Amino acid sequence: MNNFTFYSPTEFVFGKGTETQTGTLAREHGATKVMIVYGGGSAVRSGLLDRVKLSLRQAGMPFCEMGGVQPNPTDGKVYEGIALCRNEKADMLLAVGGGSVIDTAKAIAAGVPYEGDFWDFFAGKATVEKALKVAVVLTIPAAGSEGSGNSVITKADTLQKLSLRTPKLLRPAFSIMNPELTFTLPPFQTACGVTDMMAHIMERYFTNTTGVEVADRMCEGVLMSIIEEAPKAMAAPNDYDARANLMWAGMVAHNGTCGTGCEEDWASHFLEHEVSALYGVTHGAGLAVIFPAWMKWMAAHHPRKIAQYAHRVWHVAPSADSRADALQGITCLQNFLRQLGMPLDLKELGVPHPDIDLLAHNLHLNKGELVGNYVRLTEADSREIYHIAMG
Amino acid sequence: MNNFTFYSPTEFVFGKGTETQTGTLAREHGATKVMIVYGGGSAVRSGLLDRVKLSLRQAGMPFCEMGGVQPNPTDGKVYEGIALCRNEKADMLLAVGGGSVIDTAKAIAAGVPYEGDFWDFFAGKATVEKALKVAVVLTIPAAGSEGSGNSVITKADTLQKLSLRTPKLLRPAFSIMNPELTFTLPPFQTACGVTDMMAHIMERYFTNTTGVEVADRMCEGVLMSIIEEAPKAMAAPNDYDARANLMWAGMVAHNGTCGTGCEEDWASHFLEHEVSALYGVTHGAGLAVIFPAWMKWMAAHHPRKIAQYAHRVWHVAPSADSRADALQGITCLQNFLRQLGMPLDLKELGVPHPDIDLLAHNLHLNKGELVGNYVRLTEADSREIYHIAMG
Repeated sequence: MNNFTFYSPTEFVFGKGTETQTGTLAREHGATKVMIVYGGGSAVRSGLLDRVKLSLRQAGMPFCEMGGVQPNPTDGKVYEGIALCRNEKADMLLAVGGGSVIDTAKAIAAGVPYEGDFWDFFAGKATVEKALKVAVVLTIPAAGSEGSGNSVITKADTLQKLSLRTPKLLRPAFSIMNPELTFTLPPFQTACGVTDMMAHIMERYFTNTTGVEVADRMCEGVLMSIIEEAPKAMAAPNDYDARANLMWAGMVAHNGTCGTGCEEDWASHFLEHEVSALYGVTHGAGLAVIFPAWMKWMAAHHPRKIAQYAHRVWHVAPSADSRADALQGITCLQNFLRQLGMPLDLKELGVPHPDIDLLAHNLHLNKGELVGNYVRLTEADSREIYHIAMG
Repeated sequence: MNNFTFYSPTEFVFGKGTETQTGTLAREHGATKVMIVYGGGSAVRSGLLDRVKLSLRQAGMPFCEMGGVQPNPTDGKVYEGIALCRNEKADMLLAVGGGSVIDTAKAIAAGVPYEGDFWDFFAGKATVEKALKVAVVLTIPAAGSEGSGNSVITKADTLQKLSLRTPKLLRPAFSIMNPELTFTLPPFQTACGVTDMMAHIMERYFTNTTGVEVADRMCEGVLMSIIEEAPKAMAAPNDYDARANLMWAGMVAHNGTCGTGCEEDWASHFLEHEVSALYGVTHGAGLAVIFPAWMKWMAAHHPRKIAQYAHRVWHVAPSADSRADALQGITCLQNFLRQLGMPLDLKELGVPHPDIDLLAHNLHLNKGELVGNYVRLTEADSREIYHIAMG
């Protein structure tokens, strides 16, 4: 087991009707004025935004607001938010939405007290040393941003999609998680969220670090619970317990609970980011194609942990052939993703003629000569994985 | 799934040599003067206390100290600590030790800014509204106090052993967890710690709350990892990874990670506390006797979750007879505890002639007419469980 720090100071308030506590929680966490950040019209149409505002008013908490954050959020909204927040002198960013909204709120929180350009943090030119508080009312379980200190923003003019990871400052002060708010998520978005949270766990689980039995068993347990609950939520969108389990799984998948003490991999995420960047696919759907392709390549080159995954998560009977066991586990995963309606190859993803040389070239240009940790991939390896993803 | 709050703001710094970070962490968490609290001589003899003091000096952090905290800590040391801390104007209590030391530090932290008697908090006469910061260098994985907001103190004159549970204020600011510090733990203490952490998970796991698949799978996973790692640590006390897994398991067992959204039980702990109070047995060893007895009674009256435990944790093949499955699981647990050297009945625990009427009477006098939640036990039920514990 490697040395590690686990720090997840967020107060998670989970369950039915919990958004009515927004005002009280903002006050308890020291806000004097809140800036609400939200996305498209769904938070308005559903009445959620009104309930949040009512709660703030009842707690005597002043607020301002900025809507219009889009999926794959860009720097434009961050600059707009920083200007508004400074002008309004708000001291807490309250994200009402999913990962894109939360990530925008985090970027604003870091940008407001910073004299330079907030993009410096994402470009690695500056470190966040001060930030306003961030809080969340979550509506989409997927990205896990409600429990992490991370933010992903795209620079609109160059289409650079970069991530900022802070160990402490951008972790939300509180996150309100009401599973009822996810009843209206469309099946495709539900399935993409499920794929994303499973990927967050697997990026940590596929590791060469040994002696991590607690981490392994927790990863396997959360994966098994997602596999149990996701089909229920797909079949009956108002199944509270299924939605609740998925919502909590999405958080523990990414706040550090899973994978403590493990070297993490993240190659699949990076391989997918290039596909998203070039072809504009949805991240979760892209992962449904890329992650199994990465696993198939690993089954051939380094099956150990993929076979353990097959045995323990999918209950594949252990044989003498760990590669065969690994492949069986991958088939189980793909059958599951198929059941959720996810694409299984690049063609189904809407990319019938990918420029694999360009994808691999961009990946290694952005991320260096070797990518990932479970096996450190060369550009030639990455090309092979993209080829596998063609089906 | 029930509504819940998960709040674990502690910064856990885990791994080899991490105690050298004590001074830096105390500074980062805002201390201006630290009061070290420790127990008997082992922290002195091992050189740990010197390393901690060196780290504080290197960070320019002033400190004072109080040693001599005993197992089953009493109010006397708390009063002594409060007086010393006020006199020295320390603003962070640094516990170097296990549960007893941490619980004493927490009681001092609550008592210093309070004008009345600190015992008011434990007697339920006052609520902690302000507390000094608490930090931990952990030496015994068992009680989970390094991640919880709880403290258990015994009043020496009346022998009342009462617990204080705070949702927020007494959770440690940081906990340093170096598994190497546990290499010298004697086998009996290691085994008692293992039993205690398993019990902390099972008190949460044996619930009637349905729709808690993530919680179930995480509990089962951590239990399986403890069952895998504990015999390794018993066989080879310097097995770093085994010690590391046990140390982390003891934390997640009790900081709220396990059992989110579940109604918890705790009858076994209460049944054991009466045995400890009357006969002075070690808590972990008492649990090794009482918890399986409670489970056997449950197998007869309400086997559902006990059978699931048998199937998933001990891999008992599911049959049509859930009571028989449950009993098989309990046998597996008892074989495991036997392997660790734990007692299996009250006689082996050193209580050959327990006064069962008095134990049950005291239990229900202290805890009310009905105890626990999985099945709410009457005094007659509790007597039956104590009888089962006789073997």
